[in-house]
Amino acid sequence: MPDPTATEALGRFVAESRWEDVPETLRREAARSLLNHVGCALGTARDPAVRTALQVMHGLSGMPVATVFGQETRLDAMGAAFVNAVAANLLDYDDTHLDTVIHPAAPIAPALFALAEQHGLSGAAVLHAFLLGGEVACRIGNAVSPGHYARGWHITATCGAFGAAAGCARLLVLDSARSAQAIGIASTQAAGTVENLPTAAKNIGVGNAPRHGIQAALFAAAGWEAAPAAIEGALGWARASGDAPDMAAILGGLGTRWEIGRNTYKPYPAGIVFHAVIDACLELRARPGVVPDAITAVTVAGDALLLARGDRVVRTARDSRVSIHHAAALGLVRGRAGVEEFEAPAVTDPALAAFRSRVSAVLDAGLPRGAARVAIRLADGREEVATVTTPRGSEARPMSDAALEAKFAENAALGGVADRAAAQIEALWTLDRAPDLSRLMALLA
Amino acid sequence: MPDPTATEALGRFVAESRWEDVPETLRREAARSLLNHVGCALGTARDPAVRTALQVMHGLSGMPVATVFGQETRLDAMGAAFVNAVAANLLDYDDTHLDTVIHPAAPIAPALFALAEQHGLSGAAVLHAFLLGGEVACRIGNAVSPGHYARGWHITATCGAFGAAAGCARLLVLDSARSAQAIGIASTQAAGTVENLPTAAKNIGVGNAPRHGIQAALFAAAGWEAAPAAIEGALGWARASGDAPDMAAILGGLGTRWEIGRNTYKPYPAGIVFHAVIDACLELRARPGVVPDAITAVTVAGDALLLARGDRVVRTARDSRVSIHHAAALGLVRGRAGVEEFEAPAVTDPALAAFRSRVSAVLDAGLPRGAARVAIRLADGREEVATVTTPRGSEARPMSDAALEAKFAENAALGGVADRAAAQIEALWTLDRAPDLSRLMALLA
Repeated sequence: MPDPTATEALGRFVAESRWEDVPETLRREAARSLLNHVGCALGTARDPAVRTALQVMHGLSGMPVATVFGQETRLDAMGAAFVNAVAANLLDYDDTHLDTVIHPAAPIAPALFALAEQHGLSGAAVLHAFLLGGEVACRIGNAVSPGHYARGWHITATCGAFGAAAGCARLLVLDSARSAQAIGIASTQAAGTVENLPTAAKNIGVGNAPRHGIQAALFAAAGWEAAPAAIEGALGWARASGDAPDMAAILGGLGTRWEIGRNTYKPYPAGIVFHAVIDACLELRARPGVVPDAITAVTVAGDALLLARGDRVVRTARDSRVSIHHAAALGLVRGRAGVEEFEAPAVTDPALAAFRSRVSAVLDAGLPRGAARVAIRLADGREEVATVTTPRGSEARPMSDAALEAKFAENAALGGVADRAAAQIEALWTLDRAPDLSRLMALLA
Repeated sequence: MPDPTATEALGRFVAESRWEDVPETLRREAARSLLNHVGCALGTARDPAVRTALQVMHGLSGMPVATVFGQETRLDAMGAAFVNAVAANLLDYDDTHLDTVIHPAAPIAPALFALAEQHGLSGAAVLHAFLLGGEVACRIGNAVSPGHYARGWHITATCGAFGAAAGCARLLVLDSARSAQAIGIASTQAAGTVENLPTAAKNIGVGNAPRHGIQAALFAAAGWEAAPAAIEGALGWARASGDAPDMAAILGGLGTRWEIGRNTYKPYPAGIVFHAVIDACLELRARPGVVPDAITAVTVAGDALLLARGDRVVRTARDSRVSIHHAAALGLVRGRAGVEEFEAPAVTDPALAAFRSRVSAVLDAGLPRGAARVAIRLADGREEVATVTTPRGSEARPMSDAALEAKFAENAALGGVADRAAAQIEALWTLDRAPDLSRLMALLA
């Protein structure tokens, strides 16, 4: 027997995994991921970008069978999945698998919620499909990292499509072979570039991932096939995108070692690599004598990804969420970095703008991804330095359930549904016992 | 003023082009392209793959505002565009821009027909938008050829998405800036791999291109933006896909030199590079003493693309359409290469299979793309050689209008609408005078 191809191995994993065998900690991580995800989507329900996405998708929608979180309008499964994905990821406040920098929930979970609502499937089925889809996305991402992202592929959108296809295949109870075809079909739909990250086109890429996952699974269910080596073949997705994939990263320990169990949740609505910058600045701000007016210069050191993503001029709210300078200014001047601190009034605040100009960024290739060292010079000549390698919310310092609930409540308030937050949280924590999604969706509509 | 980016220049071209300024020969080429396209789509209306596509898309469809060629069921614009694109391209019988090997009509025209039918737009608007979209696709394709395809990107699907977005932007009368955004948004949707070409996943890629074009234009119309350098930026689509794009290929002579005017139409339902093989074999078969049983060996020489695409074992009908061996066998044994010769009975015909095993393929890098040299050895030791550099249907030997009409009629008969072929042909030749698509679509339904 030849070795299985990547899609064959992943298809079998997706089709044969049993919920009963999934460790309790992993089940809980799935619930935490979905709680965080739904909260993020609720938080942007009133954002003009989400309203526009809803409006365009409404014009394209078939039967309104799926809930759009925080909206009155329902859409077809693909439309709801698109808008919920856009909403959840819009503020860079969602989740992160740090090794790949994939934000797993936005491109995957919306497809699962929509399909499960349409077909009356259980909460446990959604949780399980999310773990399987997330695992597929992160493993394929690991196999092409770091080259894939570095070359310009928005890995959340590209690998997210594979994950969504895998999760949808599971929800539709496809067999191993058809699950493999769904994942292979996703290879012909994976798109999205880093160049577009500062623009709304980013949201198109993220929003399309769950749409494509649904489409891939439906066509696989109908018998359509993809190439056996759709991922790793000589003319397959990975090499076309520039990478000879590390097959061991896809196949090694499949079903026993779970990458999706390493998902993390953001305490700040900013790119994940900026969290250490914020934490270091908050730490410095708490030191004696450190007041904003006394700071004459700030030097932020980080790895190549931090520099590539974050050393930029801030013109818009989108820029501010991926700016070393804004992150440092918030930590040192405002002493907080919530949703408001990355919105228009803060972004154009003259005090913050002036402070941003005192911040410079330097490469320190010795720092690990996600770490930052911040040095400030004070008017009296004193220098203070803080280094953060495990920021709040990182794998080593995960957000507690209580912190996730507080974040959810903050988001629910932003979305105008503060009064329902407690019930929504309870419905999400108990999702594994819900026979279908009707109660949850009634609370989220 | 800085030089315009690729999307800016293309956006302006698309928005500012005037139908009155389009040369008559080019207008005629647009009509020929659409006649060929619609015929190909009708020809596969009864194919199981098209039926499946229709069925899946029916389950996802919104308001049924657009005609699916040769079908009773109508779908929403995106669904109809998907199925018509799949149908038109299914048998590799459609059209080709040889320098890029883009098949321009399938990924672009279905979006235009669907949007124009939905919004009551004129035939001239569709013809014009097709030329503009085709021009955008071929120019972007030129800018990344030959690396893009060679690396594994199915250029019809990837560049087709740009063309569809451009054509849809024109139909929606977007201004220059928004047309540029639509093309930029397409950069985050362009996908499809060569690895998947022998499978149904190919059709997903081709079918998604017009869907994505509609989506890109609708979001651009709603104000969503993409990165200015979405195509040529350091982390943009072209470089992420592996190529530093040749900007002169995109911008040079824009509006005066038309790449889409070089579109060609296939006399045989096979990959374009196999046409010279078929023609050379037909030529050899006509020579004295050349009968199949007397041929002991066949050697087909061609360029790298022919070898890369065509040196394969034939197991399925899909394989047969991209097989050097099958092409040679048809030319020499059957003396014809119509739709039936690439379907199941012919593909599994023992006589053809036995003959295929006598065919070998060799690289001759000195031969231009699309050319072939076929040498046959006869039982009496004699060798005969034929070289074809300009096969039937190539740019140098274009199919006549009459030949295109005959091809259309053949396809209409395959699709079960032979009795309407004459009226359909007449409606397509006079499309430039149609105030809307109602008459054409009534004939095609």
